Amino acid sequence: MFKYTASYTDKYQLTMSQVYFIKGQEKTRAVFDYFFRKLPFNGGYAIFAGLEDLISTLETLRFDKKDLRFLKELGYHSDFIRYLEKFRFTGNVFSSAEGDLVFPVRPVLQIEANIIEAQIIETLLLNTLNFQTLIATKASRIRQAAEGKTLIDFGLRRAQGTGGYSASRASFIGGFDSTSNVMAGRDYGIPVSGTMAHSFIESYDDELSAFNDFAEVQPFDCVLVVDTYDTLKSGLPNAITVAKKMEEKGNHLNGIRLDSGDLAYLAKESRRRLNSEGLNYVKISVSNQLDEYIIKSLLEQQAPIDSFGVGTSLVTGHPDAALDGVYKLSFANGKPRIKLSENVSKITLPHRKQVFRVIDSDTKFIGADAVTMADEEDVEIMYHPMYPLKSLSLKKYIKEPLLRKVMENGLRVNNPESLVEIAQYSRERMKRLPDEYKRFDNPHIYKIGISEKLQTERNRLVDEFKK
Amino acid sequence: MFKYTASYTDKYQLTMSQVYFIKGQEKTRAVFDYFFRKLPFNGGYAIFAGLEDLISTLETLRFDKKDLRFLKELGYHSDFIRYLEKFRFTGNVFSSAEGDLVFPVRPVLQIEANIIEAQIIETLLLNTLNFQTLIATKASRIRQAAEGKTLIDFGLRRAQGTGGYSASRASFIGGFDSTSNVMAGRDYGIPVSGTMAHSFIESYDDELSAFNDFAEVQPFDCVLVVDTYDTLKSGLPNAITVAKKMEEKGNHLNGIRLDSGDLAYLAKESRRRLNSEGLNYVKISVSNQLDEYIIKSLLEQQAPIDSFGVGTSLVTGHPDAALDGVYKLSFANGKPRIKLSENVSKITLPHRKQVFRVIDSDTKFIGADAVTMADEEDVEIMYHPMYPLKSLSLKKYIKEPLLRKVMENGLRVNNPESLVEIAQYSRERMKRLPDEYKRFDNPHIYKIGISEKLQTERNRLVDEFKK
Repeated sequence: MFKYTASYTDKYQLTMSQVYFIKGQEKTRAVFDYFFRKLPFNGGYAIFAGLEDLISTLETLRFDKKDLRFLKELGYHSDFIRYLEKFRFTGNVFSSAEGDLVFPVRPVLQIEANIIEAQIIETLLLNTLNFQTLIATKASRIRQAAEGKTLIDFGLRRAQGTGGYSASRASFIGGFDSTSNVMAGRDYGIPVSGTMAHSFIESYDDELSAFNDFAEVQPFDCVLVVDTYDTLKSGLPNAITVAKKMEEKGNHLNGIRLDSGDLAYLAKESRRRLNSEGLNYVKISVSNQLDEYIIKSLLEQQAPIDSFGVGTSLVTGHPDAALDGVYKLSFANGKPRIKLSENVSKITLPHRKQVFRVIDSDTKFIGADAVTMADEEDVEIMYHPMYPLKSLSLKKYIKEPLLRKVMENGLRVNNPESLVEIAQYSRERMKRLPDEYKRFDNPHIYKIGISEKLQTERNRLVDEFKK
Repeated sequence: MFKYTASYTDKYQLTMSQVYFIKGQEKTRAVFDYFFRKLPFNGGYAIFAGLEDLISTLETLRFDKKDLRFLKELGYHSDFIRYLEKFRFTGNVFSSAEGDLVFPVRPVLQIEANIIEAQIIETLLLNTLNFQTLIATKASRIRQAAEGKTLIDFGLRRAQGTGGYSASRASFIGGFDSTSNVMAGRDYGIPVSGTMAHSFIESYDDELSAFNDFAEVQPFDCVLVVDTYDTLKSGLPNAITVAKKMEEKGNHLNGIRLDSGDLAYLAKESRRRLNSEGLNYVKISVSNQLDEYIIKSLLEQQAPIDSFGVGTSLVTGHPDAALDGVYKLSFANGKPRIKLSENVSKITLPHRKQVFRVIDSDTKFIGADAVTMADEEDVEIMYHPMYPLKSLSLKKYIKEPLLRKVMENGLRVNNPESLVEIAQYSRERMKRLPDEYKRFDNPHIYKIGISEKLQTERNRLVDEFKK
């Protein structure tokens, strides 16, 4: 619902593009790698998200009249502005599947396009993929902690502006069941849900009248928030009264929501009292500053909670706030390109590449992705990118190529995938990742290696620069 | 540029609204307070931002056909959907001025409207004001650290999705000079700026050729990034060569940018070498994971830096990620309303209110805002909201009422303010805040008090509930 135009970019992309254009480089082909260097949340994996949104945006990305007028004001050359008038993305995109597990260093996605198009889309690409991958990963961690319980995204009010819209999308990919965000539900097909606010109760002179009205109008979708005045002395007894009244009419109270206080204690006490009244079917839902650690702790305390509403920490990816994804040139003007750095871990990998996931005979991931040149069809040994003495033989394993062409000459190759399909795929991939990579404290480190051919090329280029 | 419709809300707002509607409460007047409980970043103040965006959105907010169709699918009553077809916001908004300093507990803004409209806009209001206030505050802190140096927002690529658009707006209010974000520049009139990326240099076979082409095409807007291969051995010497060549044509290199390594050392060394070549006018700009603390440290080390490009930590408000702003009912159905809580600091203030800022004779803020009933014209003593034994006499001071009507019956009262005006106003207000409130470590605590009349009313309502 954000109206992207090609001005959703950093100014330097346009300035560099103008130089390329004036210097006759507008047909120069380039390859850029999208990858990140550090897993978020000190975790053992990340969930790749944002791809379908990116493809849809790239297919229709243009400079509109307002953009072109503004660029003229900024002093760009009129020839260049005329060129931008006809701008559209005509490149190829090779990508990991949305919802797949992704890891540092290895390319998650590659763009192959003329260098101007590739530069202009950089900001949009990073903005979309960095954020949605961060949030899908956060959601997945919360899903791990919550096991089979229901998870609802409550974050829109605390989200970073309109970023809340795509945060709801990414949360669903990472394993959430529903969202309170109506617009995201409307556009992405995410189930929407919600209960009631304290203000509803406060607008009445007493809590019971508020509950009664709500139950009368919403007999099939009735969750009562019970902590406005006093959970155990007022909210819960009133909810029980309403539940019994509903039963008389053949209806059932869906649940109660606890939003403050000691959630473990209140959930246990509420469960006990509900059950003693024969209301075992009434579900208990909780909210209030939840994250994966609090949810884990609540379940370890055996709190009988059925559903968690998670807001701020989910939609802002707290405490990380951003994935450090970058977009680096690996090929241009017919030649492989690298970026040097005193920090060897920041030296980039040249050429268009492929990534192979290494799989055991029982379909489990062994915890290794191997990066090769794009034309390598197999990889028998992978080397540590920085310590060549460390290597791993892959002969006995199955290898799955991960980067597939998803756009060709600016058009999508396959029909759009629904969000439900992406979330389902993500769940399947997660099942194949051994548990040691999923734990919160000191997870196993997933190995990333490079093929001998890629290693040789990279070393050759480094040597060339040293001369 | 986000297409807001009234479905940019939480589902429970619609569910509660449906109950109000069916129960014939759609004309019930309500007052809601927007306020926050904790200053972000452990700081001593916050900068209020987002108001103009909110007003513009509220003026045109509607449910569109897609929304109504979706609500029907969700099972809302057809009478209620017909009501929503005609929905528009027709309430009054009383607000602090955008760009002003705001503090916890006291209302920043109040909505007076029928209860359905007031509920439906809650999510949008919180989403807009929480985020922009967070970012304007972060920007202001960075401005304090950077003193008079140039500050550029580089954050779009790491922003939380399209939240980056309003982040650029809020950054400007908080004191930034420009943004790399072209679309935000186009729509908000923020100056846009930018340099060049490493990829530009890598796409050439050597750095000097890249610099030469850039300088040739951009002779009046030329900042060279010098750390692609080796700052002191390659980037800087090549930049000096180009600067001298530019001089021959009567042009001047604007600056160099350092993006890695020890920025203090590299800035000093670069300055020394540039000056020794007579290039004193070439400015030094730096970037790379900057925030207010790093900038403060760089300037304390006397690093000769002219301009700072700040990204992730600015546009995501790291490490806080969200302002904890809330929206609480204070009046409905002809009666004042409060929310009780075992935590006394969470008991809300009833009624429509006014807030007075206390000002010394020399126009400085003394560090106190007093909350009164809306009809109080002055306040002589203010009481601590929780500890009534603590009070402050305000007799000798000037008092400025802060909440002004900005929307009446759903229409804006004044012409829109430009972003430049808002930023200018914010700067003036900041000048009037004593320095002790601006420091990063243990800032002075700004006092918030309530009038005797408000205190009496609040206590009366608490007592009523206890019975």
